[in-house]
This record gives sequence, structure tokens and C-alpha cells, in this order.
Amino acid sequence: MGVVEKINPAREAEHLIEFWSQRVLASGNGNLFKVAKGIGSTNWHSHDDQDEVFLVLEGHIVIQMRDRDVDLGPGDLLVIPRGTEHCPLAQAEARFLLIGPEVTSNTAGGKPGWSYTSPSSPAT
Amino acid sequence: MGVVEKINPAREAEHLIEFWSQRVLASGNGNLFKVAKGIGSTNWHSHDDQDEVFLVLEGHIVIQMRDRDVDLGPGDLLVIPRGTEHCPLAQAEARFLLIGPEVTSNTAGGKPGWSYTSPSSPAT
Repeated sequence: MGVVEKINPAREAEHLIEFWSQRVLASGNGNLFKVAKGIGSTNWHSHDDQDEVFLVLEGHIVIQMRDRDVDLGPGDLLVIPRGTEHCPLAQAEARFLLIGPEVTSNTAGGKPGWSYTSPSSPAT
Repeated sequence: MGVVEKINPAREAEHLIEFWSQRVLASGNGNLFKVAKGIGSTNWHSHDDQDEVFLVLEGHIVIQMRDRDVDLGPGDLLVIPRGTEHCPLAQAEARFLLIGPEVTSNTAGGKPGWSYTSPSSPAT
């Protein structure tokens, strides 16, 4: 189990290099606490194996769903039920905590193609 | 599943009346997202059935454990492993998010006696 240490997710998110890539900070009760940052949008996708819980740390992120958009600001929490198609969109860089049992599948579309190849200059 | 709605835990915590009492805001992946506020301390206790995850929303809370104290401020996350004795202490009112599969047992000592009987004036 190791030493019980506090973590500051917002501070950890400052060190992320790649957009739309999840870094695991901690685990508890079968769930992982992961930070990520986003800009622009991912592809439309869904996760059939888990709910996706967003907690915004910094910036704004719009969770587009097929029937509605939900605009999340700092401190806002959203549970996207498993199987629900969604496409997050951030006009400017946003940082967020994700809570779920696994790192959500990138092959599902949760990571746009550009973020793989150009981690430090995502717009090129 | 109902409508997918955002929640702001810090704002929800403003409406809490009773100290050291958990209010469930949402659930996902078998975990509940609960807000609570604290002042003073609870009794020493542990939860054998679940890890207890604290995410501080406002104020400071010291998680006293038998071998160390961890001082949590806004945005800090701490996973207290199941079975670990702890006693949270807040010099002034603190508000926090708790994440876990159930509302943790009050009979375990996570709620001091006074908070039951005097919800709106805890010091009397």
C-alpha cells in the first residue's frame, strides 16, 4: 500500500505534456484518479465498459453529447454513463480529473490522431 | 440513467446543515460522490470495507493517522487505505468531496456525537 501521501491533481496536471492523455495519480476502491489536459476536441466515442467521470480543475470543457452539450467550468463534476456517445471540446486548454476503473481506451476515439505524434505542439 | 447533468460539489456543500454528514451527489463505476463539511474532529476510526478518498473543496483539514498527519488544502486528494485508523481535524470549517462505494459508517466513529443532536449549532 505504501505511504499515505496527498496529491494535488491540478499541480500534477501542470506537468502533462500530451493532450488527451491520462496520467494515473492514485487508486482507491477499484477506481483510478487520473489527470489529463485537453484542447480542441477528441473524436466522438463512447466507453461501453465504464462510466466516465470528469471533474474540471482548470479552464472550460464542453461535453458534447448527441442530445445536449454540457459546459463544465472549474469544480464541475459530470458522470457520463457508460455507452453514452460524447465528444469533449475545449476552446482553450482545460485540465481535468477523470475517475474510473481503467484508463479509457484511446482506440475508442477519446484521443485525436494529432496528440500521438506531436505531443509538444498539438496544432501542427 | 436519467439526464446527464453537471454538479458543482463546492456549491452543493454550501447547503449542508450538519457537520460530518455525507450527502450523495452522484454515482459512477460503483462509487458515490459525496460532499461533507467538518469542523473540529471526529473520533478515531477506520473503515474496513472501503478506502476513503478525500478531495478538499474549501478550507484545510488535517488527516491524523497513527504514524503521521497529512494537512490537506483546497484541491488536495488523499486516499486513506481501508483499515487505516484516522481522525480528521479541521480548525475552521472545511468542505470536502468523499469518493467511495458507500456512505461510510457513522457508527465507526466518523461522526462525533454532537453532530447528531445539534445540526445547526454544533458547538452547543
